[in-house]
Amino acid sequence: METVKILTVGAGAVGAYFTGRLAQAGAEVSVVVRSDYDAVKANGFEILSERGDFHFQPHGVYRSAGEYPDTADYVFLTSKFFPETDETALLRDALKHPRTVLVLIQNGIGIEDRLAENFPENEILSSIAYIGATRIKPGVVRQKGAFELKFGRFGGGESEAGRRLEKLFAAADGVKAAFVENINWFRWSKLLWNLPYNPVSVLGGGLDTRRMTDRSHIEALTRALMEEVRLVAAAEGVDLPEDLVDQNVEFTRNFPPYKTSMLVDYEAGRPMEVEAILGNVCRLAEKHRISVPHMQTCYALLSAIAEKA
Amino acid sequence: METVKILTVGAGAVGAYFTGRLAQAGAEVSVVVRSDYDAVKANGFEILSERGDFHFQPHGVYRSAGEYPDTADYVFLTSKFFPETDETALLRDALKHPRTVLVLIQNGIGIEDRLAENFPENEILSSIAYIGATRIKPGVVRQKGAFELKFGRFGGGESEAGRRLEKLFAAADGVKAAFVENINWFRWSKLLWNLPYNPVSVLGGGLDTRRMTDRSHIEALTRALMEEVRLVAAAEGVDLPEDLVDQNVEFTRNFPPYKTSMLVDYEAGRPMEVEAILGNVCRLAEKHRISVPHMQTCYALLSAIAEKA
Repeated sequence: METVKILTVGAGAVGAYFTGRLAQAGAEVSVVVRSDYDAVKANGFEILSERGDFHFQPHGVYRSAGEYPDTADYVFLTSKFFPETDETALLRDALKHPRTVLVLIQNGIGIEDRLAENFPENEILSSIAYIGATRIKPGVVRQKGAFELKFGRFGGGESEAGRRLEKLFAAADGVKAAFVENINWFRWSKLLWNLPYNPVSVLGGGLDTRRMTDRSHIEALTRALMEEVRLVAAAEGVDLPEDLVDQNVEFTRNFPPYKTSMLVDYEAGRPMEVEAILGNVCRLAEKHRISVPHMQTCYALLSAIAEKA
Repeated sequence: METVKILTVGAGAVGAYFTGRLAQAGAEVSVVVRSDYDAVKANGFEILSERGDFHFQPHGVYRSAGEYPDTADYVFLTSKFFPETDETALLRDALKHPRTVLVLIQNGIGIEDRLAENFPENEILSSIAYIGATRIKPGVVRQKGAFELKFGRFGGGESEAGRRLEKLFAAADGVKAAFVENINWFRWSKLLWNLPYNPVSVLGGGLDTRRMTDRSHIEALTRALMEEVRLVAAAEGVDLPEDLVDQNVEFTRNFPPYKTSMLVDYEAGRPMEVEAILGNVCRLAEKHRISVPHMQTCYALLSAIAEKA
């Protein structure tokens, strides 16, 4: 089997972990990093993982995709989604060849649309990560808890490139990765958790998960938000069974208390994924003429906070 | 005309201003103050008013209503409304005689219920103040802007005691006071402004009035909240015409930007009137089986913030 070439653009914690695992398994992985360029260029990545620490020395370290001299089989984009980021500009040089597959690991809804439009000849593997990965300093990443990845062709269905990537992951340690034909279902299913808990944790004045399940008003609000997600998903042809709502609440109640990623970002003064998690869903609701008043209230308030921050 | 005797319980800025004006006009006004007792006992109140500064020397200054040796014609209660405050205990000694009339100057809905139940023989004059009054230090109050008071019998209708108080105010400077037969309408009408703008100013991350009218998402949210107030008011038999919504938005847009009282309280770490402004209205909506999702979202979030603060 020929060596698989991977370029990870904007290699943050999640990207460094997953593609570092692929490098361990024999792939030739290069990275584009900006703020941490010096540290990564000098020493690569130190990955502190519950599944075994390892050193990830990228094949090449670049400041932009234009410096990459090769044609990648897979380009990973794992940075958070912000409408103001010009992802097309970031990726243009990396996606010149139509056989290069774009692997997007991002939360939220509607995050693939613009890229699919701008790179119509490249296949997109849309992915959902279930992982606790944090950049603790330049070039150092800590992984704790889950280490799972689900990916599938944007638009659904079978994918040769997807199956090949699944095999590659199967040879890697510390990753539970699966190709799925209905990645959109998993995206909405993760949103069913993210949409209520992320915004409410910030809007409620800094609530950890325990405080969100223990306060009956807040629990009722998170459930109402989930029901609204279910309505919009259904209009998009995605069936999220009703008992997922109970499951989400029970799971969250029984898990040790922690801060959502949006709350962590907010407290650190970093931008929050307001549009991917809330705004795009409100716009879909509007398009389908579905009433989502709880969601819209949170969206209006959260975007005011985000603009102010 | 016999001297009218007034006891102002918990004389904060609003109470000191209005009853100080009545003292100026010849009423015998005593006060119950707690934290500012020493300053007020020593020097009375200094009132810095756009309508003319004046000194208000109470007839008596007490730490509790039980020390008041007389029977008041009117007992004013002008502190903010918090469900956890035992107003009944505060007022018991002041309302021993059924001819004593209780004058409540508080914002919100449902604030009279408990007192009406606990003092069934005393008439209650429910009042709405339109005033900018701030305690700037112990015994010193500043009044700016409006100086208006509307009051009427709790439950509605005519009131001899109300008309007498109106006459007393008519003799005072710097007060525009009117007895009305339908005070409940004015209470809901003021709530139509307070319910959206107060919570949203806090929940949106500290928004002044201008930021709330200039952001289209937030303007839409405040309008949605006002429409929900109109529905609940209608179920309570109070007709708030639709064009009041536009009027509120226009008024707020054209007024110089300022912070709502709830935002000022929040930023100062003081308790917010969550129940009087939001909670009691949500409960009325529930009683009438009216759907108020925007309101409930704000209530859940704001009570989480209040509990944390």
